[in-house]
Amino acid sequence: MGRARSGDIEVAGSEGTPAPGAGTRLTVEIERAEALRLLAAAPFGRIVFTHDALPAVRPVNHVIGADGSIVFCTRLSAGLVPALGRSVIVAYQADDIDPVRRTGWSVLAIGPAHAIAAGELAAEYARRLGTWDDPAGALFGMEPTLVSGTRVIEGGAV
Amino acid sequence: MGRARSGDIEVAGSEGTPAPGAGTRLTVEIERAEALRLLAAAPFGRIVFTHDALPAVRPVNHVIGADGSIVFCTRLSAGLVPALGRSVIVAYQADDIDPVRRTGWSVLAIGPAHAIAAGELAAEYARRLGTWDDPAGALFGMEPTLVSGTRVIEGGAV
Repeated sequence: MGRARSGDIEVAGSEGTPAPGAGTRLTVEIERAEALRLLAAAPFGRIVFTHDALPAVRPVNHVIGADGSIVFCTRLSAGLVPALGRSVIVAYQADDIDPVRRTGWSVLAIGPAHAIAAGELAAEYARRLGTWDDPAGALFGMEPTLVSGTRVIEGGAV
Repeated sequence: MGRARSGDIEVAGSEGTPAPGAGTRLTVEIERAEALRLLAAAPFGRIVFTHDALPAVRPVNHVIGADGSIVFCTRLSAGLVPALGRSVIVAYQADDIDPVRRTGWSVLAIGPAHAIAAGELAAEYARRLGTWDDPAGALFGMEPTLVSGTRVIEGGAV
């Protein structure tokens, strides 16, 4: 946080101290393993899909299945209406951005999502997800086939 | 969290008081005017577009132009490469979600984006946006043709 230098408190932004958010920023790529770790630890993310030929984005929470799939719950009316056994390509995005410091990360997974049939596994996922949005929602599992991410960090020189 | 009861303060979650996040949630639609107000006040949002036939999501900050357009800065390499004068349909999303209470809102705007040519207006937008991500980025303005939003609120009965 800034350069608190003390007599008492010298807040970031006082003379000679760069304000939070000032200075150059570097964008660096995040590799797959780290991107998946960040995604798993994120409290929620966003399903990105096509609905009536238009882009749609829906925030939901998620858990990671034993097979590495990203599991979330949403209403079938959301446009994710593959018949059981069929799958549809969706994207799942999460980020953690500090708009004051202008740093943070963003991760995007792309892959096929399929409805999870009722059963023991579905019940466990539903329990781990907890109630969210619509209790009438349906469970989906998404295979993170393509995973990419970027991190914006503070640059060296200011 | 949990059920701290104690003589002094009875926090949410103590007996008879639902824990944060418990109980039903209602999803209500946000009308266009309010959705645009929420978007304008959000500290950042996400451009959703198609890149090499795959979905892409990029967090950026934004300002609202005098004509109501959503103005943001991103690298041309982001896939938003219309020749000046041409436009491309993109989506812009912002949300504010409380993952503990499981409430919040999400807004999505869809419309044509076009590069903003260098000039007085571009300089003003760049100043208002400040430095973010890549100083080598290019300015885009997006007309919010379609605007939708949803809010998740706590339901009545628990």
